[in-house]
Amino acid sequence: MLDAAAVEAYLHDRIPLSRLMGVRVSACDELGVRLYAPLAPNINHRGTVFGGSASAVAMLCGWALVHARIADLPFKTGLVIRRNQMQFDHPIDDDFEAWCQSPDEDSLAEFDAALAAGKARLELAVELYDGDRRCATFRGVYVAMRN
Amino acid sequence: MLDAAAVEAYLHDRIPLSRLMGVRVSACDELGVRLYAPLAPNINHRGTVFGGSASAVAMLCGWALVHARIADLPFKTGLVIRRNQMQFDHPIDDDFEAWCQSPDEDSLAEFDAALAAGKARLELAVELYDGDRRCATFRGVYVAMRN
Repeated sequence: MLDAAAVEAYLHDRIPLSRLMGVRVSACDELGVRLYAPLAPNINHRGTVFGGSASAVAMLCGWALVHARIADLPFKTGLVIRRNQMQFDHPIDDDFEAWCQSPDEDSLAEFDAALAAGKARLELAVELYDGDRRCATFRGVYVAMRN
Repeated sequence: MLDAAAVEAYLHDRIPLSRLMGVRVSACDELGVRLYAPLAPNINHRGTVFGGSASAVAMLCGWALVHARIADLPFKTGLVIRRNQMQFDHPIDDDFEAWCQSPDEDSLAEFDAALAAGKARLELAVELYDGDRRCATFRGVYVAMRN
């Protein structure tokens, strides 16, 4: 499994918008993935975080969780998002964090087996926090393919 | 109602990520809003458009439609997105466009009346095209408030 530094380097190298948005990978381990993003490059007309930035950071957070799991498998893989939904409950007034908790072991084992057989889906929930306040929730369906 | 140039200037000035993503407002009139975005700043690890960019451009497209309608009202307004969902059907391989068709006149009249009374919601559909191919669909609920 890739660690936070490896995932961050990959994101900054291969998805340049992640660098422009100032996204950092704070944690990436068996518990889940936590991203950090600053307000300044993501600000909107109201002085809060642009919804498109919030959505992109949430999407990256779930994506990073799957990527970290599949990147060092002994076969080549592809990973895309199939669909997502997002709910905005409070404006994000400051630098913010995205948190994607790792699914339970059974779901991960099922995902691993399906991917080894060719294709696997994983639905992940991501929460966005501005300090201690949960501001937005995201659910995304990711599809990994064995190439 | 604001025209394409006025909406583009507002986006670039107030939502800096729109500038970094290279978003242009190709059309903004009574038919709807069309945005253009280039592949290069929005590219991902697969050489196609990053889903977070696609989602952000779709969100901006619906946002621009409502903003263009309410920006020159004789009272101050605020505009936020409440929730959205997105479905990705094909990778976007190139520069792309977002299209948000204006709702019918009855829906707009209802929106205008609700906003004049204090608060109004509008659900909008946005389609993303890579040339003639529809690659993704977005639905977003926007909320405008009289301040």
